Amino acid sequence: NETFDLKEHPHSRLNILTGDWILVSPHRTKRPWQGKVEASQMDERPEYDPNCYLCPGNKRADGSDNPDYKASYVFTNDYSSLLLNTPDGGLNDDELLVANSQRGICRVISFSPRHDLTLPQMETPDIRKVVDVWQAEYQELATYPWIKHIQIFENKGDIMGCSNPHPHGQIWAQNSIPVEVAKETRQQKEYFEQKGRSLLGDYVKLELKRQERVIFENDHFVVLVPFWAVWPYETMIVSKRHITSLLYFTDEEKAALAEAIKRLTVRYDNMFETSFPYSSGMHQSPVNMGDHPYWHWHMHFYPPLLRSATVKKFMVGYEMLANPQRDITAEFAAEKLRNLSEVHYKVKE
Amino acid sequence: NETFDLKEHPHSRLNILTGDWILVSPHRTKRPWQGKVEASQMDERPEYDPNCYLCPGNKRADGSDNPDYKASYVFTNDYSSLLLNTPDGGLNDDELLVANSQRGICRVISFSPRHDLTLPQMETPDIRKVVDVWQAEYQELATYPWIKHIQIFENKGDIMGCSNPHPHGQIWAQNSIPVEVAKETRQQKEYFEQKGRSLLGDYVKLELKRQERVIFENDHFVVLVPFWAVWPYETMIVSKRHITSLLYFTDEEKAALAEAIKRLTVRYDNMFETSFPYSSGMHQSPVNMGDHPYWHWHMHFYPPLLRSATVKKFMVGYEMLANPQRDITAEFAAEKLRNLSEVHYKVKE
Ligand SMILES: O=P(O)(O)O[C@H]1O[C@H](CO)[C@@H](O)[C@H](O)[C@H]1O
Ligand SMILES: O=P(O)(O)O[C@H]1O[C@H](CO)[C@@H](O)[C@H](O)[C@H]1O
Repeated sequence: NETFDLKEHPHSRLNILTGDWILVSPHRTKRPWQGKVEASQMDERPEYDPNCYLCPGNKRADGSDNPDYKASYVFTNDYSSLLLNTPDGGLNDDELLVANSQRGICRVISFSPRHDLTLPQMETPDIRKVVDVWQAEYQELATYPWIKHIQIFENKGDIMGCSNPHPHGQIWAQNSIPVEVAKETRQQKEYFEQKGRSLLGDYVKLELKRQERVIFENDHFVVLVPFWAVWPYETMIVSKRHITSLLYFTDEEKAALAEAIKRLTVRYDNMFETSFPYSSGMHQSPVNMGDHPYWHWHMHFYPPLLRSATVKKFMVGYEMLANPQRDITAEFAAEKLRNLSEVHYKVKE
Repeated sequence: NETFDLKEHPHSRLNILTGDWILVSPHRTKRPWQGKVEASQMDERPEYDPNCYLCPGNKRADGSDNPDYKASYVFTNDYSSLLLNTPDGGLNDDELLVANSQRGICRVISFSPRHDLTLPQMETPDIRKVVDVWQAEYQELATYPWIKHIQIFENKGDIMGCSNPHPHGQIWAQNSIPVEVAKETRQQKEYFEQKGRSLLGDYVKLELKRQERVIFENDHFVVLVPFWAVWPYETMIVSKRHITSLLYFTDEEKAALAEAIKRLTVRYDNMFETSFPYSSGMHQSPVNMGDHPYWHWHMHFYPPLLRSATVKKFMVGYEMLANPQRDITAEFAAEKLRNLSEVHYKVKE
């Protein structure tokens, strides 16, 4: 009689941050692939592109000129999905058609004046400057009393819907709590009220003891593949200290976060020797809604590639209708990431 | 002072089936696109492909031969993500690492012996035969007492992760209730217990009165863009009768469902004169878990294309980390679909 083994047998895992389950099919990597093959990332870009709306000095869609900036540069998204002047209002028709007006601010952050770089190719002190901008933006946006949530994120690579290869991220701040954040709030609150400790704090301690899914750590952050990872090489950066938002990061922590991002994204690029696409973003405490002592700052990386630079994981029929599903285990992914070099493959060339 | 208008202003809408919210940005269609452009679907395929593992008479990955089938053909997926013989078991480490063994059966349904067809190109009586197979499979799989949920779905097009263009769908049956189905169960149950009526029944009546999001109806089904649609041209087929699963479809209803699928998918293909990609699937009552009188059978279509045959909507950074977001309203999408011809563009040529 066989015994159940996470490495061998199909199983579900609980995402303790959302309360959702995911389906893991460890045996399924053997599946041959005759489906869609992505174009390899065209990686040769000039340092400056006269047609890029993010390069220093260039014209933007709204007619304004970018300054001749030297580090990173923030401006309001010319095609914001949320707007400042949305009138209040809503609809409730028999509880069947229910809608609410949404107000917000969308900003773009150019990470570097150099058109040809990405985070893994930037120097750690320059990434540190991006961390400073994130902190300053979070602080400034929180001064609008009606803003409740600030989503800091990055879409990297055109297969992640990124419409401009110039290294940049986004911030969408709005007057309500988005679905994923509401789930993480509920789960963290419940645990904190029961145990008096941070859910992620306890989780990270357990992972450090186990050393099965940890990729690396520095003085202030742990980088790991979460037990419940959905995307093939999904990772999380978690602060060792129980901090509710990046507002409270010390200088040392900001430097350590920049270092963690650098080391993780270099490993990603080295995985398939390509500019590794992903969407990443921070989760942290809502603002202007009182105290959230249970919130524990962390950053997610959701990269779609599965087998190579050109074959990604598709979250489609079963995943959309029923349940997220993955074909390799979190432990396998962590081991691969752990064994990769922290010298960028382009530097070695 | 402007008044709030669903057609103009950013807002959130409630998905009454899941309880989740989505963000709608009606003004955002004006955004120029410099991002990823998909290859146009290569649409010229032979009636028979000697290398296809679904064509009649061909060899499959497991070494067996397909019969010389004439209508549709069902077999166990050679790369099943769920397996029949998974040993029972689980893991619970301090409620932080939580996993359960999963058991299941994955099947593939070839819709037609013809390699070059898709549902919109098949004749309605042949689609009707597919509906018969779905019903028979659902019935047969429900005879395994440990099976709790049966997901019938289709991934169409390589941008939906479909690895073989031969027209086919899948069924994944398993010993637990997937996340999305659990949400729909909860919402339908709550409404039914409060009002004594089907949530979707009431919703469809309201939509038929409004005629803003209905695309068409026949004697037994209504086809509409749900108020809370996430994907640009997302639709739903809902049975007029309150039926818990396709097990109870009458002959007339099965014919009407085939007709509805034909008419909807032809409109989809005509939208951008391309083989319109989507993932689709049915939601219906779980099995072997007692009565679910609140469940109301329906079928979802999640198509990714946004602006053209080559530009899709990306559900990435903000959507993954925070909240699904769309750039056109459900009403706009319904109007476009309503105005399309029901004669396939390839027939007209
Ligand atoms: O089963 P297939 O067609 O090989 O695979 C496709 O559908 C599955 C179910 O939605 C997904 O898990 C896969 O990522 C996708 O490529
Ligand atoms: O804002 P961008 O880069 O133009 O657009 C990209 O990111 C957004 C936020 O995740 C998505 O809504 C878009 O679908 C995607 O193409």
